[in-house]
Amino acid sequence: MVAFGGNALLRAGQKGTFQEQLENVENTCAQLRHLVERGYDIVIGHGNGPQVGNVMLQHEGGRKEFGLPAMPMDFCGAETQGSIAYLIETGMEKVLKEAGIQRHVVSLVTRVEVGADDPAFGKPTKFVGPYYQEAPQDGATYKPDPRGLGWRKVVPSPKPVWISNIDIVEKLAREGNIVITVGGGGIPVVKTESGHRGVEAVIDKDLASALAAVTMKADEFYILTDVAKVYTNFRKPGEKAIDAMTVAEAKRYLAEGQFAEGSMAPKVRAGIMFVENGGAQCIITEAGALEDPSCGTRIIP
Amino acid sequence: MVAFGGNALLRAGQKGTFQEQLENVENTCAQLRHLVERGYDIVIGHGNGPQVGNVMLQHEGGRKEFGLPAMPMDFCGAETQGSIAYLIETGMEKVLKEAGIQRHVVSLVTRVEVGADDPAFGKPTKFVGPYYQEAPQDGATYKPDPRGLGWRKVVPSPKPVWISNIDIVEKLAREGNIVITVGGGGIPVVKTESGHRGVEAVIDKDLASALAAVTMKADEFYILTDVAKVYTNFRKPGEKAIDAMTVAEAKRYLAEGQFAEGSMAPKVRAGIMFVENGGAQCIITEAGALEDPSCGTRIIP
Repeated sequence: MVAFGGNALLRAGQKGTFQEQLENVENTCAQLRHLVERGYDIVIGHGNGPQVGNVMLQHEGGRKEFGLPAMPMDFCGAETQGSIAYLIETGMEKVLKEAGIQRHVVSLVTRVEVGADDPAFGKPTKFVGPYYQEAPQDGATYKPDPRGLGWRKVVPSPKPVWISNIDIVEKLAREGNIVITVGGGGIPVVKTESGHRGVEAVIDKDLASALAAVTMKADEFYILTDVAKVYTNFRKPGEKAIDAMTVAEAKRYLAEGQFAEGSMAPKVRAGIMFVENGGAQCIITEAGALEDPSCGTRIIP
Repeated sequence: MVAFGGNALLRAGQKGTFQEQLENVENTCAQLRHLVERGYDIVIGHGNGPQVGNVMLQHEGGRKEFGLPAMPMDFCGAETQGSIAYLIETGMEKVLKEAGIQRHVVSLVTRVEVGADDPAFGKPTKFVGPYYQEAPQDGATYKPDPRGLGWRKVVPSPKPVWISNIDIVEKLAREGNIVITVGGGGIPVVKTESGHRGVEAVIDKDLASALAAVTMKADEFYILTDVAKVYTNFRKPGEKAIDAMTVAEAKRYLAEGQFAEGSMAPKVRAGIMFVENGGAQCIITEAGALEDPSCGTRIIP
């Protein structure tokens, strides 16, 4: 199981044109080639932060300019699953073709269930979408942006508990297909009497990917980020790269506040979740380091 | 193989709110239940006309209001594959649950290849997206809207020749999963040395579904529309519903101009394509008629 962020495809400072996003995705896929060549069965999970942000702005633009109804976050997330999968399939196909490797790339639209009673719903924390002069009266929760830029929608980040069609994802992957799933952490849904219904929420893509990895009994879980290793005392005196840490060590570092919330801490937690539930090792590293089989920081039992 | 239009989900005259689209999709899925209960392996293809129209307006709104780059049609189409699949999965899951039927619903992001030398590229005919006072200088083709509403992008409608992962779609369907593919006719791509690249085009969803049906050796191909049967002299003196027509009869009616271009004619052509390539029968009807196994107009060899 490999997870990477939406910012691997739409980088900060870029406008996010189609050509930019395609080049970024091709670069990321070129690095993933090293995993393909090692003969792994591969499932890819990806984030969608910058992309779903843009979609929400586009919906707001469509509302203002053309009177179109803005859609809830689950719908916006589903849109990004389609577009990002398309980009990854295009990039991956190119890399496989150049490497002379015959494997299909298959992308499944993926709903991820969260508990309707998840405590996160009581305290939404993630600011998403456009800034407003006044909070819209549309049933969603809006809070003043901490930087004073206006009112902004806030949504919760509940825990993933179920992934749609993950058995099919596993089967396709074990048949040699490269499978893309849990895009953006998955389309957030809660269970109902008649199936599932969407909710406005953001599911952490590393945690959703960890749940996918555990459910499929994946051997290894790669979390790709923008640093080659995890550090203690990151960017402080005594900074030290970690080659490997046990779950117990990782928990101690977390308790010490060694890893930044909203950045490395959730990745380490996702890695712990994977290893505590039977995974052999979680590797946190950057895509550019994958050529070296001993790359990154390993979380081990 | 079952194909239905994007307007089954986003109806003319509706604003297209999430709730409206979800109700429409649930109604369509409730009708598909009759096919499920007959024990068919089912693959669903769907259109995206109204949806991709909205996405293009939202991109234009995002450009005007927030300076975001508008994306090409292939990217917009990919977005609608994600969102429409999400709606259909939600609606279908509800219908299956109420019927006590245990089947997975699986949606694949689907690229559909067209020939780079397809003559359609020489004469783009489909008006898409927003109206402009002046034609944008962005490399795309713009023409004056025939109703005088301004300049509008025109794209070609080339023939589908290849569908990504259709072998996997077939396998999943024959294992009993209900599979969604070729959304919006598929994300249009052309072959390149390094795989495929997107093109701005619209692929007829009935023709893409027909190609899927032929490739999978489907037994039957249902094209769902807003009339129960195909007619000769439609809405004219001597109007007559057709219960069945051979391929030869269908071709004769087409040559006589019995079926409207942009409406029934492409559906009949897709049906002919299916039956000429080994399909047992194509049934053109409305979703509401599916309860009756002898519904609709059959195209037979």
